[in-house]
Order: sequence, then structure tokens, then C-alpha cells
Amino acid sequence: MTDAPIQRLCVIGVGLIGGSLARALRAAGACGEIVGCGRDAQQLQKALALGVIDRAEIDIGRAVQGADVVVVAVPVGAMAQVFTAMAHHLSPSTIVTDVGSTKGDVVRAAQSAFGNLPPTFVPGHPIAGTEQSGVEASFAELFRNRKVILTPASNTHAWAVSRVTWMWEQAGAQVSEMDTQHHDEILAASSHLPHVLAYTLVHTLAGMQDSDEIFKYAAGGFRDFTRIASSDPQMWHDICLANRDALLTMLRRYSGELQQIAEALQHGDGSYLRAVFAQAKQARDGYTQTIEASADAQSSRSDNQ
Amino acid sequence: MTDAPIQRLCVIGVGLIGGSLARALRAAGACGEIVGCGRDAQQLQKALALGVIDRAEIDIGRAVQGADVVVVAVPVGAMAQVFTAMAHHLSPSTIVTDVGSTKGDVVRAAQSAFGNLPPTFVPGHPIAGTEQSGVEASFAELFRNRKVILTPASNTHAWAVSRVTWMWEQAGAQVSEMDTQHHDEILAASSHLPHVLAYTLVHTLAGMQDSDEIFKYAAGGFRDFTRIASSDPQMWHDICLANRDALLTMLRRYSGELQQIAEALQHGDGSYLRAVFAQAKQARDGYTQTIEASADAQSSRSDNQ
Repeated sequence: MTDAPIQRLCVIGVGLIGGSLARALRAAGACGEIVGCGRDAQQLQKALALGVIDRAEIDIGRAVQGADVVVVAVPVGAMAQVFTAMAHHLSPSTIVTDVGSTKGDVVRAAQSAFGNLPPTFVPGHPIAGTEQSGVEASFAELFRNRKVILTPASNTHAWAVSRVTWMWEQAGAQVSEMDTQHHDEILAASSHLPHVLAYTLVHTLAGMQDSDEIFKYAAGGFRDFTRIASSDPQMWHDICLANRDALLTMLRRYSGELQQIAEALQHGDGSYLRAVFAQAKQARDGYTQTIEASADAQSSRSDNQ
Repeated sequence: MTDAPIQRLCVIGVGLIGGSLARALRAAGACGEIVGCGRDAQQLQKALALGVIDRAEIDIGRAVQGADVVVVAVPVGAMAQVFTAMAHHLSPSTIVTDVGSTKGDVVRAAQSAFGNLPPTFVPGHPIAGTEQSGVEASFAELFRNRKVILTPASNTHAWAVSRVTWMWEQAGAQVSEMDTQHHDEILAASSHLPHVLAYTLVHTLAGMQDSDEIFKYAAGGFRDFTRIASSDPQMWHDICLANRDALLTMLRRYSGELQQIAEALQHGDGSYLRAVFAQAKQARDGYTQTIEASADAQSSRSDNQ
């Protein structure tokens, strides 16, 4: 049963992530009907016109009816109301999963909306995306060789976890499991902090008297460094508030390190700067080699199939 | 005379920047003999073998003899000793220019080495580069459509500035002039600060207990955000110390903004976060459109030639 196509998939929030998953599962022959649901009727019509979904529903209760799997792909700040709206319309065998970038907050929202955490709810997070948003930006290959983290609770049905794992694998992703809080700490470091740093840099520079010249003479490094500052502000507002504690811990740690850099600079302590820069370069080069090796391994694996 | 090829070009420091300029000028037919000079005999032999230079000299005094233009492309921390070594070997008509990322410090080094600032010395900064280093990484197109800033002093010969401008234009760059101190303030904001932020982030994460997992689950945004942390630590050590005052000003301004973000997060002030993120996205999208429009204009201009 795990490997049979999903007969009816319901995607709530047909944007970049929800739309890309729908495209990927359809391309893989991994699902039958795809029902799309969202607050924005225009976006839904676009998703229909693009063939990303087969049927559009504005009402969440109607949308989830008869679905085998419901994927909630709305910003994390909207999860609570979506869960509440579907609570009395789910059949006991319907699997619900989400794609939120934070997990503790989503789990609390589900607990509160459903009364307790349903054993068919599998919290998930695909670590993929671009700085674009909307169904127009969605594409079937978004999750290929990307990582998806699931954070099942102690009462989550093993078959529900297997089914969601299988679904993401059909989209080309590598799935692993992790404790909810640990997920939020790891992602605060690797994703939420960098986004805040990039937003803050561009905000700082844009507020300066010479901002036009600063941007005019910025090079390719600046362009890459600030790419994530073009991400959706509402979505990142949600993520930051949802993962506030872990993010604040990282922000304080980072600010402390930055303070040490400033002091070294102030005192002309070049050896400290060189040591920090050299250690960073070594770690970053190592990280690049690891992901390149992993991508090579993936592509040779798929060549062999 | 401005538009005649350079008969003998001397490049001191044949790495990514010096090597790429040599390749570009040769490809454009803009110079005759290219003499390469550097402390590392192996690098020089590599440059000879790659055809980037025609002659290799270890001794700076011999290298600059009979050169029309000398380009000093060493890390900014090594400029002073290079200027001192060439001081008594230059003919009065030899133009000297540099490629340092900071200008105030380089001008002070030249003043001190030459006794006063020679009117044939044209301080320059090509805003181009990759996180790679060394002559192996050099390529003729590095400066195409990139900006070069010259910061001539009040006594700099106009013909020397014209000649250096022409040279960079032959390499495909867009040349403009700026006051020395203003250059250093602008670049502290658009380049030196982002490098310090990226190095500090990777250093912070690498020092955490969960660093392996943090890097493992980092996405494409992280890869781009940290690319500049793979830059040469010695070179960036030099730049940070050379532009210490302007960089410290920017670091303090940035830390203050980051502190405000942390406080907003602490107090759950979502509207502040959203406003900062939205303003940053708008500025960053505007910046991207400007450089894309500029690149389009450039490519259509070259199509018309």
C-alpha cells in the first residue's frame, strides 16, 4: 500500500512549494487527482490553468474530503487556522503533512487545532526553495536531491511516516527524521539566521545616504550574499516569530562573535582576523566538497537506474 | 598616444587579478611584451607556461625597467614593500597603477615609499573577482562589464589617468573616478562588511557542537550566502586592517541594526520585522533590476559593434 499512487492528493497553499510538489508527484505518476485549495482564487485559477492541480476549492472542509494525503503548504503563521478549518472534515485514515520551515510551532498549532496531535499527522520540512514565490515559479525538479526532514511524534503512526517518506522520495528528495526541537535549532543556524543577516545588511545599506552608490559599485559577491534578502518578507516574518527562541540564541551567539571581530579590528589584532577567516574558509570549502560529492553520488546513482 | 598599445606591461603579482588583466590585454591586442614579477617562483613559472606572461622576473627593480605601465596586483598588505622596491628603478614616464581593494592605505604606502605621491601613480580598484585565487584561476573575461574605480590625487597627471582608463576599457571594464576616502567608505559597505559577515557566520557555525548537521542540512541559499567566506583569508585580513576605520563604522552600524532586530524578536514585534524585511527585499530587487538592465544595455551595445 505504501508504494501505490496516492489516489487523491489535496494541496493547501498552491505556491512555489505546494505547486512544485504537485508537479513532481504528477510527473512521477505518484498520484491521481490533485485538489488545490487556497484563499487566493486568482492563484488557484492560475494553478488550474497551468495544469498543476485538477480541481480548485476555496473551502478547506470540501478540499480535504476523500483525500488520502493532505499537504499543508501555507506560511507557518497561517498553519493554525488551516488546521482548525480542516479538523472536523478529515477521515481517520487521511494523512496530513506540512512543509513549514519550523516544526515546534507547527506541532503546537496542530495540537491546539485538533485537540491532540493526530497519529496521522506527520510534520515535515523540505529544505528547498528559491527566493521566488507563487505557483508560476513552481517546477517539478525543485526537490530533486534535496533533503526533507520529518519530525514525527511518539504517537505518530509508522505507516503514515512511511507514506509521507515515499511521497517525497517520488519527488526526488532524500528523507530523514529528527526530533522537533533539534530540527528548529539546526535550521535556526543554517537558514533562519542567514536570512536575518542578509535582510539586515540590505536594510542597513538601503538606509544610508550613499545607498545608490553602494549598490552601484557592489560586485558579484554582494549579489550572491544578498540573494536570500529577496525572499518573501511575510513568510520570513512568520518563520522568525515561529522559531523565535532558537533564532534569538543564534543571533546572540553571532553578535558576540561579530563583537570579537570588531575588537580585534579596533586593536589591530591581525592574527585573530586571519585565524577566523582561515577557519571559516576551511569549513566552507569542506561543506562545498561534501555537497558536490553528494550531488555526484546522486547523479551517478540515477545514471545507473 | 593614449590609444596605442602598451609596449611593455609589467604585472607585479600574477594571480587571479593580475593574470586576468594580462590575459585580457593580450586578447585585446592592447599590449606587447608582458613581464611578470612575484615572490613565488613556481607561480611565475606557471604563468609563463600558461602563456599569461612573456618573461618572469623575481627582482622588482629589473621587472619594472623599460615598462610603460606597471600594474601592482599584490595583496594590499604587501603594497608598501613593492613600492619601496621599485622606487629607484622607475623612469619618469612609467605609469604605475594598482588593483587594491582599499585606496587610502595604498596611497599612504605610495607616499611613504616614493617620498611623495608621484604624478604618474594612478590608484585603481577593479571591482571584480571570484572566491578563487592564483594564476590558474585567471581568465580574460573577468573584467568584462565590471566597474573599475580610479582615485587620482590632485597632482596626478591627466594623461596617466587617461592611459589607465584606456587600459581597463581594453579589458572590457567601465571606469569611473572617485575621491579616495569616499571609495573606502563605499567599499566598506558593499564589499568589506559582507565578507566579514560571511566569514563570521561560517566561523560561528563551524564552532558549534552540531556543526556537521548544520552544514548537512544547509540549502542553496546558504551556499550562495557563504560563497565569499571561501575567499583568501590573508587577502581579506589585509583589506580589513587597511580599511579599518570605515569598516569599523559599518560594523557598528550593522550591529546596531541587528540588535534592533533581536529586540523586536524578543518582544514579538512582528510589524518591525516585516517592515525591515520588506524594505530590504524592495532594495535588493531594485538593485538586481538595475544590474540586469545594465548588463542588457552592455550586451546590446556590444552586439551593435
